Amino acid sequence: MLSKNQIKQIHSLRLRKFREESGRFTAEGNKLVMDLLESRFRISGIYALREWIDANSYAINRKNAPVFEINSAEMNRISQLSTPSPVLAVFEITTPSPDQEVRNLKWTLALDDISDPGNMGTIIRIADWFGVEVVLCSENCVELYNPKVVQATMGSIARVKVIYCNLRNALEGYVKSGDGQIYGAFLEGNSIYNDDLIKPGIVLIGNESRGISADLEQLVTRKIFIPSYGDAKGGKAESLNASVATAIICAEFRRKMI
Amino acid sequence: MLSKNQIKQIHSLRLRKFREESGRFTAEGNKLVMDLLESRFRISGIYALREWIDANSYAINRKNAPVFEINSAEMNRISQLSTPSPVLAVFEITTPSPDQEVRNLKWTLALDDISDPGNMGTIIRIADWFGVEVVLCSENCVELYNPKVVQATMGSIARVKVIYCNLRNALEGYVKSGDGQIYGAFLEGNSIYNDDLIKPGIVLIGNESRGISADLEQLVTRKIFIPSYGDAKGGKAESLNASVATAIICAEFRRKMI
Repeated sequence: MLSKNQIKQIHSLRLRKFREESGRFTAEGNKLVMDLLESRFRISGIYALREWIDANSYAINRKNAPVFEINSAEMNRISQLSTPSPVLAVFEITTPSPDQEVRNLKWTLALDDISDPGNMGTIIRIADWFGVEVVLCSENCVELYNPKVVQATMGSIARVKVIYCNLRNALEGYVKSGDGQIYGAFLEGNSIYNDDLIKPGIVLIGNESRGISADLEQLVTRKIFIPSYGDAKGGKAESLNASVATAIICAEFRRKMI
Repeated sequence: MLSKNQIKQIHSLRLRKFREESGRFTAEGNKLVMDLLESRFRISGIYALREWIDANSYAINRKNAPVFEINSAEMNRISQLSTPSPVLAVFEITTPSPDQEVRNLKWTLALDDISDPGNMGTIIRIADWFGVEVVLCSENCVELYNPKVVQATMGSIARVKVIYCNLRNALEGYVKSGDGQIYGAFLEGNSIYNDDLIKPGIVLIGNESRGISADLEQLVTRKIFIPSYGDAKGGKAESLNASVATAIICAEFRRKMI
């Protein structure tokens, strides 16, 4: 049975302040927890129903993970999901440093103040799908360990390295270190379908409402845009959602690279 | 000043039951309300701050829209947004019939039980961007006039015709009426980058967790999938979000069509 104190501690991890103080975050659902168990993240505790523990004893033992068996009523008390899953786990936060990573990148994403947790999680999932190993985030992006971000990654948080940093410094360093491009997603510029967009580079995605900040725009070496069908026939949406635009750009770059 | 009764009526539209009873739905924010004012939807009432009314008197008068001036405190009471906008409007629901529409389609989307309001709204926005005029929805898709769907369309609800229907009947009718394809989005089949995917058709998108139902899979004439970079190099996300997959497919079809 869970103690009041345990419930209180798990609850506290809904708030950034307590996540930062304790260096821990929560993840829920079988796939997400299993993906994280197999990753570089260290497990702090697993809270699960009997059936889940029985079915996953091999993975639990191999990681030497502290397990607490709870019942459905207790799960309902600690879960943030509208339909609670059989497992909630607490992991330790890791904070990768940008220094070494950025220089050797061939193909990555940089996010300028992405604020919506759903977008952030979805972009990490897209990165994973398209083999983008590192995602750079400006310091004002929504926090990676926000439970809504964690859940929206659908497990990809276990594989993609997400680095918060001074994006201006990181991009400047990248430009100086080689001949990689910095592609900025705008509503004008070079169509992503242009055939010469095949050089390695960083794709910079702007904030959902403000777009790419003026500060970073100066560092962009190629402005790119996604043509709307309206260019030929009359579509009228003014823009695409940030994660949707990221997906279309990644898919097109990938198509050209293989 | 708003009466208690007005506030109660606007509040009631948060629930599907009352939207259906009254045949009305709400929309918030300048862009969404202006897009809807310029559309086929009939306006039932506008609730706005003084500044908004002053700035938009031309559009309001042209549509002969009933306007209620309210203050910020009143807006906070009726708004569902975490940061209320200067305008909330009530429009009349329209229910387009599938009969005529489906036969003449060249290029459209069909949604099989999309359940997440954010996905539904985002897919309508994507359709608008790529010039898809009609979106067919199975009867179990999340309701179009759910406020979260309306807001996520970012105004595209004003332009894209969304038709709820028996999807099986609609797709059968389409297949019989010509040589159009029914493309189904799966995790295997023909890569979307294959060059022969240029025939007109309907792109069928499945439910977020269950995918395309067995019932509709039988009607699919071409199974398509989005290659992950992992096919060559080791990306490991198991799938893409439904709206993200829709966007990548629409972008690729569009690239080939122009």
